[in-house]
Amino acid sequence: MDLFPVFKELAQKSESKIVLVVLDGVGGLPLKPGGPTELEAALTPNLDALAQESALGLLTPVYPGLAPGSGPGHLALFGYDPFRYLVGRGALSALGLGADFQEGDVALRGNFATLAPDGTVLDRRAGRPSTEENARVIARLKEATPRVEDVEVHFYTESEHRFLVILRGQGLSDQVTDTDPQKPGLKPLPARALSPEAERTARVLNLLTERIREALKDEPRLNGALFRGASKRPSFPKMEEVYGLKAAAIASYPMYKGLASLVGMDVLPVEGEGDALPGKIQALRDNWDQYDFFYFHVKKTDAMGEDGDFRGKVEKIELFDAILPEILALGPTVLAITGDHSTPALLKAHSWHPVPLLLKAPYLRADEAGRFTEKEAQKGSLGHLRGVELMPLLLAHAGRLAKYGA
Amino acid sequence: MDLFPVFKELAQKSESKIVLVVLDGVGGLPLKPGGPTELEAALTPNLDALAQESALGLLTPVYPGLAPGSGPGHLALFGYDPFRYLVGRGALSALGLGADFQEGDVALRGNFATLAPDGTVLDRRAGRPSTEENARVIARLKEATPRVEDVEVHFYTESEHRFLVILRGQGLSDQVTDTDPQKPGLKPLPARALSPEAERTARVLNLLTERIREALKDEPRLNGALFRGASKRPSFPKMEEVYGLKAAAIASYPMYKGLASLVGMDVLPVEGEGDALPGKIQALRDNWDQYDFFYFHVKKTDAMGEDGDFRGKVEKIELFDAILPEILALGPTVLAITGDHSTPALLKAHSWHPVPLLLKAPYLRADEAGRFTEKEAQKGSLGHLRGVELMPLLLAHAGRLAKYGA
Repeated sequence: MDLFPVFKELAQKSESKIVLVVLDGVGGLPLKPGGPTELEAALTPNLDALAQESALGLLTPVYPGLAPGSGPGHLALFGYDPFRYLVGRGALSALGLGADFQEGDVALRGNFATLAPDGTVLDRRAGRPSTEENARVIARLKEATPRVEDVEVHFYTESEHRFLVILRGQGLSDQVTDTDPQKPGLKPLPARALSPEAERTARVLNLLTERIREALKDEPRLNGALFRGASKRPSFPKMEEVYGLKAAAIASYPMYKGLASLVGMDVLPVEGEGDALPGKIQALRDNWDQYDFFYFHVKKTDAMGEDGDFRGKVEKIELFDAILPEILALGPTVLAITGDHSTPALLKAHSWHPVPLLLKAPYLRADEAGRFTEKEAQKGSLGHLRGVELMPLLLAHAGRLAKYGA
Repeated sequence: MDLFPVFKELAQKSESKIVLVVLDGVGGLPLKPGGPTELEAALTPNLDALAQESALGLLTPVYPGLAPGSGPGHLALFGYDPFRYLVGRGALSALGLGADFQEGDVALRGNFATLAPDGTVLDRRAGRPSTEENARVIARLKEATPRVEDVEVHFYTESEHRFLVILRGQGLSDQVTDTDPQKPGLKPLPARALSPEAERTARVLNLLTERIREALKDEPRLNGALFRGASKRPSFPKMEEVYGLKAAAIASYPMYKGLASLVGMDVLPVEGEGDALPGKIQALRDNWDQYDFFYFHVKKTDAMGEDGDFRGKVEKIELFDAILPEILALGPTVLAITGDHSTPALLKAHSWHPVPLLLKAPYLRADEAGRFTEKEAQKGSLGHLRGVELMPLLLAHAGRLAKYGA
């Protein structure tokens, strides 16, 4: 059920400031039964002290059992139903690479493949080339195929065999089928139009596939391309329309800046490399007066989880703990700290487990949770929420939601 | 919102085995405030030990306040939204009786009634005859009315005044109204077609009502029939299509075998009478290598609850506890133990109370619940789930669900 019309009607102005900190993939698991999770193992004096004066709870980001990707995980935290507001694979790649991806463009995920002389696919991943080799071949394609008919073709290296293509021109459509046959021994499929207005896009994509093959015919391995996930830039309602919030994103990685821009946040410049926590604090401070809502993203907790580096993830949690006082010093009316999903080092992957949620805000009830950990959060007074339920709670505590019904 | 398309897309293969044990109606209530529930009163050393290394939670089978019948309770546990996947009353009777109920058939719930000479209903339940008397009259009807026009009519005794009719023939429809006027002093209603293609079925049903009256005109009490709940065999997506699971049902009673077959499970033969727990264990063992998912049903917990036999229900729980080690010995990757609803002996009926859920699986978080009881389950790390949310959780722990979104 779409509640945006309800929020639109109830949204009211206030001087309050909301900060939503997303510690990416922060939820964890013990390495062996009975052991601590990453959050339990971390020394977090500032988070501990904050937890004692906050309300906690657990958040199932998307749905029980579903391990969300960054897209659905974040959209849910922004209050966007992750089953309704979908980002196609091509569009997500474009956001992840920070590509120039404009309205009307069509983005596609490409795989380099190895084709036999008769055109059948020998290896759908072209022997998993290095990202450097991918970049070398992408440079050749940029040179060889800058356009097909009057459609501009923009190539981007992603990693290993993966690349991104953005088609730019009049009247393009994303209603075209994939060319990836999904298994070797078959020929690439011709792209087909799923609706009449996509005929031209399908033709361009098929011509592009031919041109790539021609351009790469002397390559031993990366001599073909398979496409999937054609998608336009999604057009979502903006947070300002839905919630009446002037919202800003403080993030370092393109994917998160891209997701934030999809919901209408201003993406603030951040100084520094990697997670750049000091730069993020500076951006928050510099823009404090200009916005109602700040999304503050920390990536490395997830990256360490994906690497299976339990100790590394613990350290990234501790690094966040160290800068937390600087966020508190700004005096946000409402501060929420949570994750977009769990990434237990044990699993080296996103998982379906709930994440802890901490809420520092006016009008809290007594709460027994003493630390920002999975186990303590379970005792918290916020109970167990879904990701999409967080935003209305933040708005309410910020005095930004009127009564529903008379 | 229908999530089956999502699960279909995310389902992935694995060597894992899932066992879902349904202790029918297992949730209970204390006989007086402060007393134990049936689960609390039972001596369950094996369940207790398992609970200590498992995660627990509470499950609201269908919706808070709704006491589900076996149909919605089970369909929810199988992941089928019980408000979307409906089984008509006639179809449920057919499943419950293990009747030969084929695609295209129309099943109707019948009541024997006592009619006055002018045809008005004197007693809608014909004085609640014994099931034996019902069977005697059903035998007469089988003889007298094996078909109406070219439609076969199959009669089955259910209990007391209740019986089942299955109509079999070309072009039948379940879009016909009930003939039961719902109160005495009125005449049976003529069946009406709710759509043009149901005209013939309505005519056949009205002819059948006349023939039954003619055939039973010398009966003093059971001299008429009222029909309701015309329904075809539902056509639900199969668990294999939705989850990619090869699924088997181990159950003794027709209703549960029927419900399992509706979602595409193979129904395994079980040796023995009644709940036949040893036969069920044998069936599980014999078929272990052939399936990914086993639904293992225990009926008597519910039957004792319906009888108001608190002590009897406690004993049935203890009987299950005694065979639990044999299930564990097979080494299921994921084992869930729960109920399809509560049947407190105090109420002698299904109730709306949540049921405890126990999950033994890889990748669990620390859990404070020490026993498989309503009160302990409330402390558990799984929190409070809905029935339909269980299957995706089982699939995730079994490694059978890919990430949702990139």
